[in-house]
Amino acid sequence: MITKETFQEISASEFFYRNRDIAGFANPTRAIYTTMRELVENSLDACEAIKALPEIHLELSEVEERFYKVRIEDNGSGVPEDKVPQAFGQVLYGSKYMLKQQRGTFGLGGKMAILYGQITTHRPVKITSSTGGRRKWTYVLSIDIEKNIPIILSKKIERNKEGWRGTIIEFYTQGDYTRAMSKIVEYLKQTSIINPYATIIFKDPKGKIFEFKRGTEEMPDPPKATLPHPWGTDVEALTRLIKITKTTDMLSFMVSHFQRVGEITAKQFLNFAGIPVKKNPKRLNNDEIVHLANALQSFDKFLPPDASSLSPIGEKLLRVGIQKELEPEFVITLQRKPSAYSGYPFIVEVGLAYGGKVPTSNNITLFRFANKIPLLFDEGSDVSRKVVDQINWKNYKIQPNAPLAAFTHICSIKVPYKTVGKELIADRPEIERELLNGLREAARRLSILLSRKEHIAYEKHRVNIFEKYLPKIAQFSAKLGRVKVPNVTPLIKRISKYTKTI
Amino acid sequence: MITKETFQEISASEFFYRNRDIAGFANPTRAIYTTMRELVENSLDACEAIKALPEIHLELSEVEERFYKVRIEDNGSGVPEDKVPQAFGQVLYGSKYMLKQQRGTFGLGGKMAILYGQITTHRPVKITSSTGGRRKWTYVLSIDIEKNIPIILSKKIERNKEGWRGTIIEFYTQGDYTRAMSKIVEYLKQTSIINPYATIIFKDPKGKIFEFKRGTEEMPDPPKATLPHPWGTDVEALTRLIKITKTTDMLSFMVSHFQRVGEITAKQFLNFAGIPVKKNPKRLNNDEIVHLANALQSFDKFLPPDASSLSPIGEKLLRVGIQKELEPEFVITLQRKPSAYSGYPFIVEVGLAYGGKVPTSNNITLFRFANKIPLLFDEGSDVSRKVVDQINWKNYKIQPNAPLAAFTHICSIKVPYKTVGKELIADRPEIERELLNGLREAARRLSILLSRKEHIAYEKHRVNIFEKYLPKIAQFSAKLGRVKVPNVTPLIKRISKYTKTI
Repeated sequence: MITKETFQEISASEFFYRNRDIAGFANPTRAIYTTMRELVENSLDACEAIKALPEIHLELSEVEERFYKVRIEDNGSGVPEDKVPQAFGQVLYGSKYMLKQQRGTFGLGGKMAILYGQITTHRPVKITSSTGGRRKWTYVLSIDIEKNIPIILSKKIERNKEGWRGTIIEFYTQGDYTRAMSKIVEYLKQTSIINPYATIIFKDPKGKIFEFKRGTEEMPDPPKATLPHPWGTDVEALTRLIKITKTTDMLSFMVSHFQRVGEITAKQFLNFAGIPVKKNPKRLNNDEIVHLANALQSFDKFLPPDASSLSPIGEKLLRVGIQKELEPEFVITLQRKPSAYSGYPFIVEVGLAYGGKVPTSNNITLFRFANKIPLLFDEGSDVSRKVVDQINWKNYKIQPNAPLAAFTHICSIKVPYKTVGKELIADRPEIERELLNGLREAARRLSILLSRKEHIAYEKHRVNIFEKYLPKIAQFSAKLGRVKVPNVTPLIKRISKYTKTI
Repeated sequence: MITKETFQEISASEFFYRNRDIAGFANPTRAIYTTMRELVENSLDACEAIKALPEIHLELSEVEERFYKVRIEDNGSGVPEDKVPQAFGQVLYGSKYMLKQQRGTFGLGGKMAILYGQITTHRPVKITSSTGGRRKWTYVLSIDIEKNIPIILSKKIERNKEGWRGTIIEFYTQGDYTRAMSKIVEYLKQTSIINPYATIIFKDPKGKIFEFKRGTEEMPDPPKATLPHPWGTDVEALTRLIKITKTTDMLSFMVSHFQRVGEITAKQFLNFAGIPVKKNPKRLNNDEIVHLANALQSFDKFLPPDASSLSPIGEKLLRVGIQKELEPEFVITLQRKPSAYSGYPFIVEVGLAYGGKVPTSNNITLFRFANKIPLLFDEGSDVSRKVVDQINWKNYKIQPNAPLAAFTHICSIKVPYKTVGKELIADRPEIERELLNGLREAARRLSILLSRKEHIAYEKHRVNIFEKYLPKIAQFSAKLGRVKVPNVTPLIKRISKYTKTI
């Protein structure tokens, strides 16, 4: 019998090594899918950070059965020479956490892909990068998982004559590409819908080349980092602000450290919270800090969070993306106004595509996106599916089995994923409401187009009848009255409402 | 425009502070639910480790609106004096990770509850513990989240006159108990079904006392820690074994470090892998290690994983638990033989309860358990729901809206949760198969009982008719033949098949 428990500490990399299922590496099929996806997302982030049109080359080659070499090259920002070892060899190390829209969970996904490669093949990773200056650097690394530190196996500096900028990552991994293939290709296709300014070329282990070319050279502005909004500020965050602040009174504390708080709002708020304007923030005691945090979250006169930290793709680009891949008969895209949940701003974009290459399904095909990432798994528990299912589509003239696809895109500083694997979005009421209103409005607009289409079809049918019989009637009447057959064409034209469109 | 990315490192506690949604702290309702649940599970683990009948006192009292004091006391193993600060104030520090069945994700859940309390109330946590010796110790702690280290605010040692053993945790937290209440009570009820030897008493903020008393004093044996099974050994694990091994040839390496590998199996395996029996494991090169890991995972003549590291509750105790809480008319419980997925042993237990307090539902009420934890959220994407839905219940005489409940319990060294919040189990094919076969077998047995019940009802009806008319026929016939009315009772008795039961 055990009478005593023994204790130990583990590193973050050890934790994720033991719990790799939760990061999307549950089995060889999911592992290779997640590997591709995390690499592509890091590359897209690296390009967008400097507003460079993404040009991503991805290659998977088979070494032996279920054993692959992975290579990805991008033209993004590049990783500074001294940061490479940690950026690729230490879990929970990454580009600085800022309050702006990003694809990644902090410093985890890409490293999990490399770590999984290491634990299945025991081979190191090779990284070549340059920030566009005179030099480029190549590291060969492995990860000490127990200690969560990178081990540098070799380092080489070369002249960067051609002024190249970007990153190349090469490593070995195991997986089951054959079973993952359809999901990987679907992922790239959907990525190309939501990032229509990106070119992604993928060479698969069978030598097949999938090319997703950009449909536009227009890129949305990169998101800006912002100050926190009062609604999203908990006691911990507040304590940290008080520790670092240089302000000496509450009024300037409020104005300097929060977004959308000017002097007038700050005064109103401090009055509401019962805290003197002149109080030194560093003199707040424990209970006062908790009280202040609760007041920050409950004062309803703050302006809603600023959306400049977000980078939605916009109605036009979303339309381009959908048209590029699905060539539908009708597309409706629309962007909702910025909204917020617990202090985090978010924007919902929705789309509906009808006809063309859109598949028919008795369940409406759904394309889910969050911060420009397609979400392909666990649709059943996702907020978007919930919303699509609660709309009565028949009210919008959409019959079961119609060739209809719905698109939802949620952009936020903080997407409320339920998993580290980024597949499932929680049903926050504020997000649910925006999705519902957006999809209903899009459905209304679509139903107008469908009505018009129906009407045109009906009119065409009506005119066809006239076209067929009027000349006969004319002929017959002419015969009866022994007069010349009149010209009926002007008559037919007059009864056609939509001559141009017919 | 940003031209350079800046980089930083964050601690594990900082990571989970930022991503608390994934650990089950998405909103005030879920937060208070998860807090209760993590504490109860830690207490149960602490009791089971020393096979002490769990006696858990849980109390939630309202300080002000949505602001609570939490207190839990158990009679478990206690936490050694020098381990308290890290065990309660450092994320990813916990009782030693061993290959045996446990409720917790390593060193995360309980600490997240304390951490959430700290970030919402900024108050420290107080821990009193004793391992049953002459002393007991009380610490007041807070967590430095940025550094992931405990800060000891005070420490007190007292004499433990009464020989008390266990742990008391007290802290403050925010949440929405009113909305979480029904889920918390349901959680405790289901916990009491799957741990029928535990007594749990919960005093809620309204002063209401929920008492879940044990239904048996029988406890399953605590699981034993085992050696790893070859099927679950990846390159990383193998490398670590090679680093620590004292063996100098592959034959003894295999026999000493893996479960269920004797000399004969080891020889067969090494022959299969093409590795000499005398080879020194420390001399294996990189490619050989990878080759060995792949061979370990693919050699199909290893005995299946040993189930002694598991602690299922057993058919009898599961039946006690179900009867205690649902008082059904019929209960079927059964345990499947141990099986394995990717080298991890698991055992599936299933149950069916019919009638009594079982609610009717057109969708069969499902109670899901994993390692003696009830799972209450995200049923829609869980493997058990999938399996229940694919069974054609009508084949087993179960009509829609029958008062039927299904129970599934998956025990494993490693439950393939999809989330850190432990709510969703992935559909590993091996687990799916065991669930399906188990539930089908239970349904077959239930259908026999239901047939018998139906048959008895039919017989009763038939006998009633005879009872009603035979005396009349006898009377009438007697009148006709002017004879004495015969006694029909023996006749009726003879045609009744189930006299005893009627």
